[in-house]
Amino acid sequence: MLNPLNPAMAATFPPPVMEARRWIQGVVFPAERPLINVSQAAPVEVPPEGLRRAIAEAALNNPDAHLYGPVLGLPALRAEIAAQWSASYGGEIAAGQVAITQGCNQAFCAVLSTLAGAGDEVILPTPWYFNHKMWCDMAGVRAVPLPCGPGLIPEAEAAARLIGPRTRALILVSPNNPGGAEYPAETLAAFRDLARERGLALIVDETYRDFDSRSGRSHDLFADPDWADVFIHLYSFSKAYRLTGHRVGAIVASAERLAEVEKFLDTVAICPGQLGQIGALWGMQNLGQWVAGERAEILSRRAALVEGFARLPGWRLLGCGAYFAYAEHPFSDASDVVAKRLVQEAGVLMLPGTMFQPEEAPEGKRQMRIAFANVDRAGIAALVARLAALPVR
Amino acid sequence: MLNPLNPAMAATFPPPVMEARRWIQGVVFPAERPLINVSQAAPVEVPPEGLRRAIAEAALNNPDAHLYGPVLGLPALRAEIAAQWSASYGGEIAAGQVAITQGCNQAFCAVLSTLAGAGDEVILPTPWYFNHKMWCDMAGVRAVPLPCGPGLIPEAEAAARLIGPRTRALILVSPNNPGGAEYPAETLAAFRDLARERGLALIVDETYRDFDSRSGRSHDLFADPDWADVFIHLYSFSKAYRLTGHRVGAIVASAERLAEVEKFLDTVAICPGQLGQIGALWGMQNLGQWVAGERAEILSRRAALVEGFARLPGWRLLGCGAYFAYAEHPFSDASDVVAKRLVQEAGVLMLPGTMFQPEEAPEGKRQMRIAFANVDRAGIAALVARLAALPVR
Repeated sequence: MLNPLNPAMAATFPPPVMEARRWIQGVVFPAERPLINVSQAAPVEVPPEGLRRAIAEAALNNPDAHLYGPVLGLPALRAEIAAQWSASYGGEIAAGQVAITQGCNQAFCAVLSTLAGAGDEVILPTPWYFNHKMWCDMAGVRAVPLPCGPGLIPEAEAAARLIGPRTRALILVSPNNPGGAEYPAETLAAFRDLARERGLALIVDETYRDFDSRSGRSHDLFADPDWADVFIHLYSFSKAYRLTGHRVGAIVASAERLAEVEKFLDTVAICPGQLGQIGALWGMQNLGQWVAGERAEILSRRAALVEGFARLPGWRLLGCGAYFAYAEHPFSDASDVVAKRLVQEAGVLMLPGTMFQPEEAPEGKRQMRIAFANVDRAGIAALVARLAALPVR
Repeated sequence: MLNPLNPAMAATFPPPVMEARRWIQGVVFPAERPLINVSQAAPVEVPPEGLRRAIAEAALNNPDAHLYGPVLGLPALRAEIAAQWSASYGGEIAAGQVAITQGCNQAFCAVLSTLAGAGDEVILPTPWYFNHKMWCDMAGVRAVPLPCGPGLIPEAEAAARLIGPRTRALILVSPNNPGGAEYPAETLAAFRDLARERGLALIVDETYRDFDSRSGRSHDLFADPDWADVFIHLYSFSKAYRLTGHRVGAIVASAERLAEVEKFLDTVAICPGQLGQIGALWGMQNLGQWVAGERAEILSRRAALVEGFARLPGWRLLGCGAYFAYAEHPFSDASDVVAKRLVQEAGVLMLPGTMFQPEEAPEGKRQMRIAFANVDRAGIAALVARLAALPVR
């Protein structure tokens, strides 16, 4: 037995993606039926050549690319986000209201640390993003589950009933991981109003915003002139620009909040990696059209998945959008057993709903997350065919 | 007033290096007397060209350099550390006992999170490294100060008297930041024995090991066949290979400890940046001779500083080694006032002892840290001359 061991860490579950990788270790997938891996929400292709060249060029010729930078990130990148976000969300965002982090997970951890400590509570819709739940567990913050309504959309009225004296924040992810739901602007506004009324923060993780199927802006939160008193926006450069291996994310919040965030980031990061930031800035300035093409491709895959699942006996899609489909499976086994069976019998790796639901929630055992973004239309057809061929038992 | 605000975060002091940067904002330093910045322990030169080329090459041609990697780091880098450390420390370290982090600060945060939670205690010699203290404050872990003995060396017997029922770890930094002391092998062994006897962990941050003035290995902790039951080693690639802007550090600990660390890193980092890891591995495999030259240069600067301060009226060196000199100043003002005065009157930026001591400790007001590693021998002579010219009052 490990000693000493922080009991809060001991009670935190191990990383689901790493656990799922172990399920495929040593398994031989025949050439005619290679593994279809829909377990992780990550591009598997490299960024466009121009972006790679921009990074390589900086590594060779930009001395600053190798040195510490400011804790809250490169000023030019912060300013670019402020300008582009102000335009696209129809609001006023200053560069001083933007911080860069080593990925969006870190953005969440930093923000939550400024809001809540051991014994405090936050409200987290279920199914939830497992790393959010893990950070709450490690920090001794109670994640109060809020079961979503129809279409995997959470409801502010239901959230209101869960608020207690220790509640510090409402936490949303839209488009949602794992559920795929694109939250209506009215839903987000209702959560904002609730947060303001009750003196809470509203965190919205918009990692998948670039793949939202709706045209125009997805919410009006930034259009509120007082947005910064309650709203905290999180973003990731990993998906849109294929920068997962560089770890670049962002926080948009009040400058006062960022002064607290700076303490966390100085201690946990010192600064974000310079080359990743340089790549992200180059991407923002040069890849607008390219990202639009990426979005169109993801939306086409999404359509293929929806169509395929409609023909799949026994499976029921609960949500589908961004990188994810979230579905009920038709098997009598629990989802974690089904997930391992899918590896062995269908050559498919997906994560079970048990990884996205509280242990005591029965729903998790019936649900699966399919991170379909890496799989093209032919691959999605193959996935559906393999699932259809599996005997239901 | 910011609301909601985690009181533990509110009670954490802001990043000292960022605060010091504000002291020089807007100050004009004349060309004949440019700023001498001895505030931060960071190389200001770029890494050798071969390393920069290795990073650029990977950015262009290695697809994995842009994708997520394993949470605990690149297997090849973990194996290289295990092999080199086993040889240099005379012990047995397996690749599975090595984890890579986004810098050594993150290594500390990850390890401490596995050991201690809110209400627990750790023992931290003073003067302390401020980011260690900040992380304890944020996490609600009480950092019990252990005033160092002569030569800024901490004493295990004194530490023993501070151990209580909530103590979880003894935390050392050797060579020390800010004190510059190279801890004798016997000191480290005594702390290890104490930790083992009392069921605690011993964390030793060896960020500055490559600049230790002693020949041969600096301690025998890894030579203990049971090292992993008590000892946790931290390392940084930032200094030896000038990779500060890439954020690469390491943890060496038991595989069981790293399974807990993996939960933290998955949630806070997902994985370390790939290009930095590629650079670090290239450095370990190709820059042994070059690092030896860097060490010789730093040791020569250290000698210049010791010699210069011996001639400096009123100043008294308490410790000097690695990147740091730690000294008592001769002024009647408190060190934080002195630090600002030095900017204005001498064009010198150094950090005051108040940033490295508990608020209630009177010592901090009398002490200054001089991070001399960036300043060549001529610069050190200029620094000493400017300090000598300053009227004592």
